[in-house]
Amino acid sequence: MNQSIIKYILGKVLEIVGLLMVIPMITGIIYHEEEAFSFLFVGVLSFAIGCFTTRKKPSNTMFYLKEGCVVTSLSWILISVVGAIPFMLTGEIPNFIDAWFETASGFTTTGASILTDVEAISHTSLMWRSFTHWIGGMGVLVFLLAVIPMSGGSNINLMRAESPGPSVGKLVPKIKSSAAILYRIYLGMTVVQFVLLVIARMPAFDALCITFGSAGTGGFGVRNDSCGSYSALQQWITGVFCVLFGVNFNFYYFLIAREPKKSFRMEEVRVYFGIIGASVIIIFFNIMGMFNNALDALRAAFFQVGSIITTTGYSSVDFDLWPTLSKAILVMLMFIGACAGSTGGGFKVSRAIIASKTVFKEANSYIHPKSVKKIKMDGEVIEHDVLRSVNVYTITYLAIFIVSVLLVSIEGKDLVTSFTSVAATFNNIGPGLAKVGPAANYDCLSYFSKIVLTLDMIAGRLELFPLIILFHPAVLKEIFIRKKCSQRAS
Amino acid sequence: MNQSIIKYILGKVLEIVGLLMVIPMITGIIYHEEEAFSFLFVGVLSFAIGCFTTRKKPSNTMFYLKEGCVVTSLSWILISVVGAIPFMLTGEIPNFIDAWFETASGFTTTGASILTDVEAISHTSLMWRSFTHWIGGMGVLVFLLAVIPMSGGSNINLMRAESPGPSVGKLVPKIKSSAAILYRIYLGMTVVQFVLLVIARMPAFDALCITFGSAGTGGFGVRNDSCGSYSALQQWITGVFCVLFGVNFNFYYFLIAREPKKSFRMEEVRVYFGIIGASVIIIFFNIMGMFNNALDALRAAFFQVGSIITTTGYSSVDFDLWPTLSKAILVMLMFIGACAGSTGGGFKVSRAIIASKTVFKEANSYIHPKSVKKIKMDGEVIEHDVLRSVNVYTITYLAIFIVSVLLVSIEGKDLVTSFTSVAATFNNIGPGLAKVGPAANYDCLSYFSKIVLTLDMIAGRLELFPLIILFHPAVLKEIFIRKKCSQRAS
Repeated sequence: MNQSIIKYILGKVLEIVGLLMVIPMITGIIYHEEEAFSFLFVGVLSFAIGCFTTRKKPSNTMFYLKEGCVVTSLSWILISVVGAIPFMLTGEIPNFIDAWFETASGFTTTGASILTDVEAISHTSLMWRSFTHWIGGMGVLVFLLAVIPMSGGSNINLMRAESPGPSVGKLVPKIKSSAAILYRIYLGMTVVQFVLLVIARMPAFDALCITFGSAGTGGFGVRNDSCGSYSALQQWITGVFCVLFGVNFNFYYFLIAREPKKSFRMEEVRVYFGIIGASVIIIFFNIMGMFNNALDALRAAFFQVGSIITTTGYSSVDFDLWPTLSKAILVMLMFIGACAGSTGGGFKVSRAIIASKTVFKEANSYIHPKSVKKIKMDGEVIEHDVLRSVNVYTITYLAIFIVSVLLVSIEGKDLVTSFTSVAATFNNIGPGLAKVGPAANYDCLSYFSKIVLTLDMIAGRLELFPLIILFHPAVLKEIFIRKKCSQRAS
Repeated sequence: MNQSIIKYILGKVLEIVGLLMVIPMITGIIYHEEEAFSFLFVGVLSFAIGCFTTRKKPSNTMFYLKEGCVVTSLSWILISVVGAIPFMLTGEIPNFIDAWFETASGFTTTGASILTDVEAISHTSLMWRSFTHWIGGMGVLVFLLAVIPMSGGSNINLMRAESPGPSVGKLVPKIKSSAAILYRIYLGMTVVQFVLLVIARMPAFDALCITFGSAGTGGFGVRNDSCGSYSALQQWITGVFCVLFGVNFNFYYFLIAREPKKSFRMEEVRVYFGIIGASVIIIFFNIMGMFNNALDALRAAFFQVGSIITTTGYSSVDFDLWPTLSKAILVMLMFIGACAGSTGGGFKVSRAIIASKTVFKEANSYIHPKSVKKIKMDGEVIEHDVLRSVNVYTITYLAIFIVSVLLVSIEGKDLVTSFTSVAATFNNIGPGLAKVGPAANYDCLSYFSKIVLTLDMIAGRLELFPLIILFHPAVLKEIFIRKKCSQRAS
């Protein structure tokens, strides 16, 4: 394994985390909050250690998928740990596991919180919490690729390990340019949402945090009732942007590149809007009786469907009180998730499409045993490797899910809580049902469960394999044995 | 499609159902119950219609997988409908949907019941209920293959459509002999269990019904508390035999054929016992505090694990009251199910093994991109077709499961009830949790939910594809258009 490049990239990640803490620092200065000092301290320290680690460039910049997985997993563990320290220093989340849970929840854009009273937290910390969503949404390493110069190396392996979806979409031949284009689209949409919310008279601080939360499809809010107390217009804007950030970013790229036909032909995007439409209609009729007028019911249904399928997790009402059918649909949406190549989590619409196509193909092969049909998407044949990886992904997904539910159920909370707490963190959504529902939070769980759920969040955000590779005995052995060898050599 | 052979086989199935009703008739005569007349009437009618339909042999006895699926699905729908009529005639289950649910639950060896008071039902009907388990366990068409002469034809396609597991195990080159061997093993083990239960002082009627229920891994009992009021020894015998009937029958075949080495090398059987062992130990420690002495807790843990993993569904205590960890393990076992080639339902241990091996293979390919390792089981390479079909099966399984939960949740029962009622019927187990738990029953559900669950039971028993093929538009078209053509021709 190419350890020098891994060390180098981790150093760069530390530098970036240090730099990112400038945002909460500025917030702290504006609001005259002393919490800014904690961020200053950790930011400077992190940046310094980063610079020290990256003082000499690695001689060998080649790395393969294995290194890509290892460095991605380690980066995400590193940023969630470093990002958690300020919360402990400010005393707002004194316990490390709680702080780690909260920060990992931020970076992985989960939005699950252990805070019982968000409104008691300083603006500085709230800004950091929401800002981690924005960074995590597009990916820390993609950010790295977009902003810092890195020569040579198989960058595609980095992007492959961090990007959501079954196949990596290279927009343009150069990875670096792809990353930059993605970030530009992301930034542009973020600005538009912020401006619209401000026009709709949301306070600027709230508007910025809510925009970060929707853009990263995270879901951290700044009020105890999530989005419940915002006006109808503000909720509509937030809901619509949640849905828009869940669209495959290639869609926007084609639009910008003046190829709208290509945009609207994208099967995944059409199915995504189809699922949203169908779910909104069913839930609307199911909950209509609970509201005074139909428009309120429609807004609640749309907001919740958009928030859950994109794995954002904002809530405008306590949907744990909705009828079982609506709750069952929301749980199903939790698993489907947003489009590949968006900031959303979950299983991804494109995987669901590919998976269901393999089922139809199998059924057809029973009826016409000799037909040899290829599975297509967007008119192109899907390669066998992608098909296999989708199938394997499904099974891995299930296996991790089941094991996690068993581990979380050890502490003895009810089944719905155990089941939906895993579903909501593993799919990077945020709120579950029952004891971890939209009106409650994750504070009631044991530390053991919180650790399991934190790892689930990271595994879910990185789409399972990077973390599995990191914990693979062969890789662990390689990391530790090489270390010993190099120690002996030096 | 070869319609004449389908008609012929369906006729034979009617004959058999008619003959099978002799068993409840005899029971009725012994106990002087007038319910016997209902069975006499339906039995004679069914047999007569069967004879009429099969009066001339079909000229063309060839049939392919498509016909195999269609005839299997139709047979199972037919027997569950015909088998339900006596319950309606006796007035014990007056509603057709209830009676269909109960009978399908019997034949598919699910054991889910809508009866609120089993002890009020006549011996005649109870015997029929339990006897359907025994027939359904090994398969109606396998029975047909074993006992009636059928020349030529690709019988393997019948067996493939009805037999549980990812690949069909032909014990000996001739399918007919395989079926006969399987039935001989099955009958032998049934007799042993019955004799042991009688020696353990269980009343003969109870012993026979409980034996039928364990042999088919069904789970219908004759007392309101399932197996709760039987003695410790009787429960141990029942539990052990549940587990034994969940073993792949090839295991016993190899033992009989004096190849014990082959038996004990079977990976599936070893994993099966491993899962049972691990689950019993964990649940034992988890529930120990609820019992007066350790042996009682061990018996309860073993009985419930054996009953649930084999998808039998007997209960000795109300496990809905157990801690969440134990319940979560039981729910997980509901999905794993027994061995392929046993009478048990569920996903099957061998599929779980193959699925997890594909995950490890994928992880390894990240680390050693150039290695080309084949997935093996019992030392033999698993063919690519089997791998693919396991993957596709997993996805289909999930899809049907999700849709069913959504449909059942329309009536608005709580999530645990909706979720576990589907899990328990789709996997042919019987009791779920909450409102359909071991101390409750399915009577509380709406007729719509009961129809969904009945179809789930049949789909689960036939391992999804036969029923999907039957409802495939192309096949439906073929059935109905051909019918019209032949009507026009005649």
